[in-house]
Amino acid sequence: MSNSQDHSGEKLTIERPGQRYTDGNLEARTIHLAREVPYTLFVNDREILSMATLPTHLRELFVGFMVSEGVLLSPSEILECAVDHGNRLIRLELDVPDERLEKVEKRGMLTSGCAGGLVFSVETAAAPRAGTREPLQISTSCILDRMRELDTFRGIYSITRGVHAASAATDKETLIILEDLGRHNAVDKIVGHCFLQGIDPKDKLLLTTGRITSEVLTKAARSNFPMVISRSSASAMAVAMGEQSGIDVITYVRGGRFNYFSHGGVKLSVGSCQKD
Amino acid sequence: MSNSQDHSGEKLTIERPGQRYTDGNLEARTIHLAREVPYTLFVNDREILSMATLPTHLRELFVGFMVSEGVLLSPSEILECAVDHGNRLIRLELDVPDERLEKVEKRGMLTSGCAGGLVFSVETAAAPRAGTREPLQISTSCILDRMRELDTFRGIYSITRGVHAASAATDKETLIILEDLGRHNAVDKIVGHCFLQGIDPKDKLLLTTGRITSEVLTKAARSNFPMVISRSSASAMAVAMGEQSGIDVITYVRGGRFNYFSHGGVKLSVGSCQKD
Repeated sequence: MSNSQDHSGEKLTIERPGQRYTDGNLEARTIHLAREVPYTLFVNDREILSMATLPTHLRELFVGFMVSEGVLLSPSEILECAVDHGNRLIRLELDVPDERLEKVEKRGMLTSGCAGGLVFSVETAAAPRAGTREPLQISTSCILDRMRELDTFRGIYSITRGVHAASAATDKETLIILEDLGRHNAVDKIVGHCFLQGIDPKDKLLLTTGRITSEVLTKAARSNFPMVISRSSASAMAVAMGEQSGIDVITYVRGGRFNYFSHGGVKLSVGSCQKD
Repeated sequence: MSNSQDHSGEKLTIERPGQRYTDGNLEARTIHLAREVPYTLFVNDREILSMATLPTHLRELFVGFMVSEGVLLSPSEILECAVDHGNRLIRLELDVPDERLEKVEKRGMLTSGCAGGLVFSVETAAAPRAGTREPLQISTSCILDRMRELDTFRGIYSITRGVHAASAATDKETLIILEDLGRHNAVDKIVGHCFLQGIDPKDKLLLTTGRITSEVLTKAARSNFPMVISRSSASAMAVAMGEQSGIDVITYVRGGRFNYFSHGGVKLSVGSCQKD
């Protein structure tokens, strides 16, 4: 197998202080997170899109993207492919007919990032800072209970194993669970449900079966959720954005355990989840 | 918990004939797949984007998306929200300042779909039909061996559990494994690697840890891979596109078993994976 090591010199993981909940205790723990870095693609001096990516093999990523979009048909059409890590830019100079280039120019952007889309918004996001809202009181067992409800939901996943689910919950009950093929879409459906139903997210939990990337964190911040909880992991950028926005991040809720990044969104106490 | 059943009348799953490999046998089996349907969003009569989605809770999805993008701040700004299932359109009439609308108009599209981006390309994709290439000969054990190599790769996933991986392989060996935060990006990196290295995908396998949606299948079709293999599931649209393109789809490779949708891309035989 070819060497698939990183040649960019960019770090691919970040060690971050967090807490681990296990066996009834919250303990300080260093947690390794994948880096997520936004890069902007220019093709023939035109800005095409930005996407957040693990900062390795960027030539492969952006060339592959242009192949997948039907723009590039032969390697000889690549006149130049320069990665500028300092400015987080990729410049592609291509010798292809205009009609092929228009495929991506007209679309403007696209969904390939999957972790991308909202990268620009991040910096200007009207994310409320910790302190502007009361920290939500919640116990560790409530986290486990709400994730169990998401995990055992008898929806399309139970038939197809092919979708993600997301939910909005109070500490004591799950309010709504919705599913979609994309983890972002499932979160958007929850955001839209709360918005349309007049449910204020400021004292609600946002749970998801998918990973928490910058895009998911931005969606939570826009809606003012104080905490995002995932059965899976989070990217380093998402956790950093949670810190900036005062949104707590909980990952790997499984087997009665989880990782916790505390940013002021909630006041977490070890203990059972008592209903009123 | 609120009722989260579908109210659109659209079916959310599809039963599709496939084969199940288990205990050394390939047997016919009906497999349930999640539906994936492209919808196009118009805001104030301007086309904003298309995304492929599980066809339920579309008001929530597109309103939630506009909230997440920072366009919608109050429910009272929604003058109309009409879902046209027949034409697969969502029309939003919003009373918001132009500068907020420009956030999505300028971006043109975005990545929220996660299963979206390439929906339009699908219909015009230069996907080679079965028969234009020799079916690849491959044994069931080779599928299991190559997925085991992807599963046990000691990459960023082994440190963070926060990324997807994809690989290109012959029946006998894995050629390259690359990772990214987004499952689409990992596939694009493989596509780009093959393109840049002059590796012809026509007799290679494309493996991924992520689900196979329409976008992933389109990327495989553009590059002429005869088979896409996932540790996870596939959407109904991806399997249908595989059929149109003569690309075999294998899902749920785990525990020595998998699901197989045969479309002429390979000639699969039950047996061990012998090296030359």
